[in-house]
Amino acid sequence: MRKIYFLIPLCLFIFQIESSTQEPVKGDEDAFFIKKIYNTALTQGQCYPWLTHMTTKIGGRLAGSPQAAAAVEYTKQMLDTLNLDSVWLQPVMVPHWVRGEKEQVRIVNSGVIGSMDLNALALGNSIGTGNEGITAEVIEVKSLDEVEKLGEAKIKGKIVFYNRPMDPTQLRTFNAYGGAVDQRGSGPSKAAEYGAVGVVVRSMTTRLDDIPHTGALGYKKGIKKIPAVAISTNDAEVLSRVLKKEKTHIYMRTTCEMLADKLSYNVIGEIRGSEKPDEIILVGGHLDSWDVGSGAHDDGAGCVHSMDVMQILKRIDYKPKRTIRCVLFMNEENGLAGGKAYAKASNEKGEYHLAAIESDAGGFTPRGFSSTAHPDVFKPKFKKMTEWLPLLEPYGLGFTTGGSGADITPLKSQKGLLIGFRPDSQRYFDYHHTRIDTIDAVNKRELELGAASITSLLYLIDKYGL
Amino acid sequence: MRKIYFLIPLCLFIFQIESSTQEPVKGDEDAFFIKKIYNTALTQGQCYPWLTHMTTKIGGRLAGSPQAAAAVEYTKQMLDTLNLDSVWLQPVMVPHWVRGEKEQVRIVNSGVIGSMDLNALALGNSIGTGNEGITAEVIEVKSLDEVEKLGEAKIKGKIVFYNRPMDPTQLRTFNAYGGAVDQRGSGPSKAAEYGAVGVVVRSMTTRLDDIPHTGALGYKKGIKKIPAVAISTNDAEVLSRVLKKEKTHIYMRTTCEMLADKLSYNVIGEIRGSEKPDEIILVGGHLDSWDVGSGAHDDGAGCVHSMDVMQILKRIDYKPKRTIRCVLFMNEENGLAGGKAYAKASNEKGEYHLAAIESDAGGFTPRGFSSTAHPDVFKPKFKKMTEWLPLLEPYGLGFTTGGSGADITPLKSQKGLLIGFRPDSQRYFDYHHTRIDTIDAVNKRELELGAASITSLLYLIDKYGL
Repeated sequence: MRKIYFLIPLCLFIFQIESSTQEPVKGDEDAFFIKKIYNTALTQGQCYPWLTHMTTKIGGRLAGSPQAAAAVEYTKQMLDTLNLDSVWLQPVMVPHWVRGEKEQVRIVNSGVIGSMDLNALALGNSIGTGNEGITAEVIEVKSLDEVEKLGEAKIKGKIVFYNRPMDPTQLRTFNAYGGAVDQRGSGPSKAAEYGAVGVVVRSMTTRLDDIPHTGALGYKKGIKKIPAVAISTNDAEVLSRVLKKEKTHIYMRTTCEMLADKLSYNVIGEIRGSEKPDEIILVGGHLDSWDVGSGAHDDGAGCVHSMDVMQILKRIDYKPKRTIRCVLFMNEENGLAGGKAYAKASNEKGEYHLAAIESDAGGFTPRGFSSTAHPDVFKPKFKKMTEWLPLLEPYGLGFTTGGSGADITPLKSQKGLLIGFRPDSQRYFDYHHTRIDTIDAVNKRELELGAASITSLLYLIDKYGL
Repeated sequence: MRKIYFLIPLCLFIFQIESSTQEPVKGDEDAFFIKKIYNTALTQGQCYPWLTHMTTKIGGRLAGSPQAAAAVEYTKQMLDTLNLDSVWLQPVMVPHWVRGEKEQVRIVNSGVIGSMDLNALALGNSIGTGNEGITAEVIEVKSLDEVEKLGEAKIKGKIVFYNRPMDPTQLRTFNAYGGAVDQRGSGPSKAAEYGAVGVVVRSMTTRLDDIPHTGALGYKKGIKKIPAVAISTNDAEVLSRVLKKEKTHIYMRTTCEMLADKLSYNVIGEIRGSEKPDEIILVGGHLDSWDVGSGAHDDGAGCVHSMDVMQILKRIDYKPKRTIRCVLFMNEENGLAGGKAYAKASNEKGEYHLAAIESDAGGFTPRGFSSTAHPDVFKPKFKKMTEWLPLLEPYGLGFTTGGSGADITPLKSQKGLLIGFRPDSQRYFDYHHTRIDTIDAVNKRELELGAASITSLLYLIDKYGL
């Protein structure tokens, strides 16, 4: 990741932290146009009222839920108001997991603290414990490797407690998440391989608080499915302390279950290109969210960013050369069915996505874009994009290599540039997959700046190609 | 402000948005040391618990108030625990303004909306209306110039309503504030010059909400003092709409008053330099805040940043060459008595501040530092500092020219570098001078990163001079 692609003067960066007006230099058409995009987003942006509706009137939008269906309908209606060239729904079958009754997770009959309820959420896709729940001794581990080392002798019949915290010293919190989330995603099947009966995972956040974070697990084929929950970081600390003193048993009861697949939709709207309509530039986010909270940052923000890109382009009467397509994907959180179905259909039609930009890292102050592509095409496309840095740096934006977005990754074989919008990440994992990922956690200006940043990059891609 | 000082490769900036570990290159002692500072701040920082105490146990700390006295005592106690070389209080006489009873500001007998209470706060330093309050016709203006143009014929006997909003299209919100705040600071005396009996100012924020923002006015010598309040932006919009339809009267009653000056203190702690003790590097914030809310961002954050700089340096056992001095200034908000008294005493002792860094822009994600100095010394000192950019850019920090901080500006004649810490500014004016500037508005990681950023710059100044 530490390759140096080019050198340019630093002067623009110097000004980014206190650029007073961003007044473009006379004659610099692109700088003027980008300033116009920002002004429009900050004074006539629609992302914040749209997100307010999605979070307060609709709520958490897990794939297959009535709320997800309502969000499909609402966002299509909103796109319909924008006078785009076409707006449509793309059918997609999605998994339908339901949480069931409120989870019960309890330290039982501890000599140290008696019985104690833990703040817990079942992990997405998890099976339930059965109506009676399960009680078993807990064993704490710090990694999947440790489970392997302990082996069946120590693991069998127990509840495995994964308690490796996210590393708070990582500046970019997504890296800390990446360094811990295997415990949630793959930990349950790893524990089951050695005979565990259940899994408890420390919530994925650097914060110490009482709020559990849900998120998907993936069961490994051929391995017995066992139930799994996440507990809050404060409770993980307590449980760990109790385990240092004595053998500890936990009772857990969850009634979550995976139902039959359900019909849902990706929501799509496009402005047809005037010169190169067959070159598609996609902007998107995912419409589904977890059922707790209301998916404000994850990923309501990405949806309303993408919709606002279309709104801003129409409002300033921009006529794109290429086709601009807004896609709100269904089922990113626990299956990626929307992203896969979109790419499959697109490939079948022989479409070409010149670029795809996904916003799925929250609605915070923009810091830039990360990008990737098929190795055949990455370097020249990335280099071309970074030549626009002087236009975007005054707005605090930079470019980096790395990932893009889960929903657009299946488009990689089309050999366009895949781009992830990257806002400031410091607060993201306070809210991620929790009941507090609500509109209160979103700042209007920060959200609007996201829409402006994405629109600006998209404008440059449309105007100059890649 | 758009001078180009030097050119360096952009490579580091490219990484700032997704620098994965900030693992320094072997042999780069400074990079290792700065990484250690960040790790310490993010795992053993004390700024957040300190700020929690100051905001939840003490509260708003207006100069002269019991809370300000409690904050002097608390912060001195905390500095006493750090095993610094010396900690002391510097006496300073401060103005003592009190808000009195809850403000009443009301549109009266409007044909459009009847009577309507407005969300209002008296401006700091304002006189009260007297017990009976005042009722007068309102005239809306957009600027001080407009008051001059309208003249006595239109202004006399009226309440002047300053309603020019902060410009939301300014990327840096402090610039938008700077473009509107003359209405609050100088508007009352300007209106009084032409015979106005009171002033109502639109709150200083780009947000539309019901929360009034207080802040200081300055009465002009020789001009009659008239009472002034700020109203919320939503109420400003309502009032403006009503005024478009009919003559409108407002009733306002405030019982605020300026009492006799009171004895208070700057709180100071220092680590004496081992090689050049006479070169002082100051880090500070202001201990006083407005009485509404609890001054979490303004400027509790700056105080705990500065205290944490000392805590971090001691914890990693850094022995500075130069004298490092933490100064918590009293009375920045409505008089600057602390900053003036500190500079006066320092000049009298013949001290030299090589550099002074103030944190007074909130506890948000760090973006860099702004700096200024006496013109005789600015260019070489700024250039020297910017040579360290490759060490700080991986942490998202840049340098810019501009202001520094109100409390340290009186030190300018000592010809050191004056530096203002500059975090992300997007949310600042949602909270500034309001009842919602509380600990809930502060993110722990963002606050800790501020302490780390300031400590890192201070370390480089100490090690290499300027």
